[in-house]
Amino acid sequence: MTAPRYDVIAIGNAIVDVMAPCTEDQLVALGLNRGGMTLVDEDGAKRLYDAMGPAKEISGGSAANTLAGMAALGARCAFIGQVADDQLGEVFTHDIRAGGIAFDTPARDGQPATARCLIFVSPDGERTMNTFLGASQFLPPAALDDAMIADAGILYLEGYLWDPEEPRRAMRRAIEVARKAGRKVAFTASESFVIDRHGDDFRALINEGQIDILFVNEHELATLTGEKDFEAGVASLKDKLPVLVATRSAAGAIAIAHGTRAEVAAEPIDKVVDTTGAGDLFAAGFLTGYARGESLERCLRMGAICAAEIISHYGARPEADLKSLVAAKLG
Amino acid sequence: MTAPRYDVIAIGNAIVDVMAPCTEDQLVALGLNRGGMTLVDEDGAKRLYDAMGPAKEISGGSAANTLAGMAALGARCAFIGQVADDQLGEVFTHDIRAGGIAFDTPARDGQPATARCLIFVSPDGERTMNTFLGASQFLPPAALDDAMIADAGILYLEGYLWDPEEPRRAMRRAIEVARKAGRKVAFTASESFVIDRHGDDFRALINEGQIDILFVNEHELATLTGEKDFEAGVASLKDKLPVLVATRSAAGAIAIAHGTRAEVAAEPIDKVVDTTGAGDLFAAGFLTGYARGESLERCLRMGAICAAEIISHYGARPEADLKSLVAAKLG
Repeated sequence: MTAPRYDVIAIGNAIVDVMAPCTEDQLVALGLNRGGMTLVDEDGAKRLYDAMGPAKEISGGSAANTLAGMAALGARCAFIGQVADDQLGEVFTHDIRAGGIAFDTPARDGQPATARCLIFVSPDGERTMNTFLGASQFLPPAALDDAMIADAGILYLEGYLWDPEEPRRAMRRAIEVARKAGRKVAFTASESFVIDRHGDDFRALINEGQIDILFVNEHELATLTGEKDFEAGVASLKDKLPVLVATRSAAGAIAIAHGTRAEVAAEPIDKVVDTTGAGDLFAAGFLTGYARGESLERCLRMGAICAAEIISHYGARPEADLKSLVAAKLG
Repeated sequence: MTAPRYDVIAIGNAIVDVMAPCTEDQLVALGLNRGGMTLVDEDGAKRLYDAMGPAKEISGGSAANTLAGMAALGARCAFIGQVADDQLGEVFTHDIRAGGIAFDTPARDGQPATARCLIFVSPDGERTMNTFLGASQFLPPAALDDAMIADAGILYLEGYLWDPEEPRRAMRRAIEVARKAGRKVAFTASESFVIDRHGDDFRALINEGQIDILFVNEHELATLTGEKDFEAGVASLKDKLPVLVATRSAAGAIAIAHGTRAEVAAEPIDKVVDTTGAGDLFAAGFLTGYARGESLERCLRMGAICAAEIISHYGARPEADLKSLVAAKLG
């Protein structure tokens, strides 16, 4: 096995986030699923956008956010995802390439438009996401570059994209290609509703040993394992996965790798502005450390530092120089 | 003369800002006009966008930013400006309407696209702007709603838009309509290069008594009057204008209204993040106070408070609740 050209290649939604502050009353009046992610169709997206305050547009997408963080930390990254041939598609493409990430999936002609996620940010920084998947859900298996996947140390998959059919088939094929090339497969569960719908798929992948590294938060862990208690959930999964990473928001995170357990507290910050991307950037810090062969404790600390940076401002793409930030905190 | 329906109606560029941090070296390598505004064509915009780091998109446009601030302070506002029928046009339209500002100029079909301003933000917060005017420069005089202009207490004009021919004709007509209706005309000089090109027009408008309130910064004052010394520049203009407002960045601002002079220091802030919109928001605070009949000192303080808010974050549209901010600081 030759050394890979990329540290990581990710398949994920190619989304532009549209973010605005909101009040708690507005969330209630609009009937939104506070703190969660809900899929909306084009009409639903239009209705919510009309109700939204003045907004900012910042590239997003869970796995793409993770790569933006990893690239900022110095990892060599590639991304696969579907945009439409429109202005928001140009924005997404610019931002990911400008971050130093290889991205060659051709834009898709015609409708639907590039995906967008309407994010209502509460006064406490909690984000409520409403996603119009648009072009993103039409990523075809044919768009995969097998040679590129085989040439990346880690294949990172976004659970959100397991929901639409074409990308699911694409991701299944990508797993085969990566495993055949002797690469690692990392998976983020993304959201409980995805596990509600596809939990059997995920459990089968885990039981078959197809996943090397799994990222879950405590809600996803409970949905995936059926165990309400965090430790019981961890116990039921830890022997089925080489690496399990479970995040708990302000309560920090744990990781268990090949039987060894480590924990990290959340990194203290002055003020939570917008929690969008916290999990994505935790994964960025952790995976970068993992790809470099750092200790489990250090991987977790890198995750916590990156997550803290992202929640201190609007948007799920880093503003600070993450490499300097991690160096300053970890040496 | 009946009481107007709007406190202010503005004619300005309908622009989406595309903002990214940059290094001083990058400004030099790209040959950019540090701290200034440069017009670029579509190819130039593409070249600069390709060279730019990961960016954020936030609605902008000088007069539109001023209205966003005024509306946030409780003023009744209307905007006239030209977007194209595209996604960035939808973003601009959404953001201005979501701010409570009436905006009915129909989107323009076909090319060019909605205007964008590529803004490179230096480590010290200075912004270097490169504007592709796109659809904005094709605002036709026919797009003006005369009744709406006559129904606003103040007509506010953006000097940038004096440069392209169609909007210049539109603005000349708007001045006539406003004056005939007994309304005030306010004008912001926008940038020295506009005065270099159209200074004779501006001096004629001032000498003919067509302008009631003029906003300039110290550079524009020097270009307009030919006086290098700030006080000499002020002295040469003050008797030709009912209200003159001259801003001096960190050195504060002065205003002279009907022979009375007042000054204000810059509002202290922790850290300058991005100076984009500082002048626009100063005008927002000042004009809102003026429309309410506040004292000159209070108008200046409102300007300084709004300018300080905008330079404390990325983007030229307010993030904080300006009304509460002003109330907390001024009572």
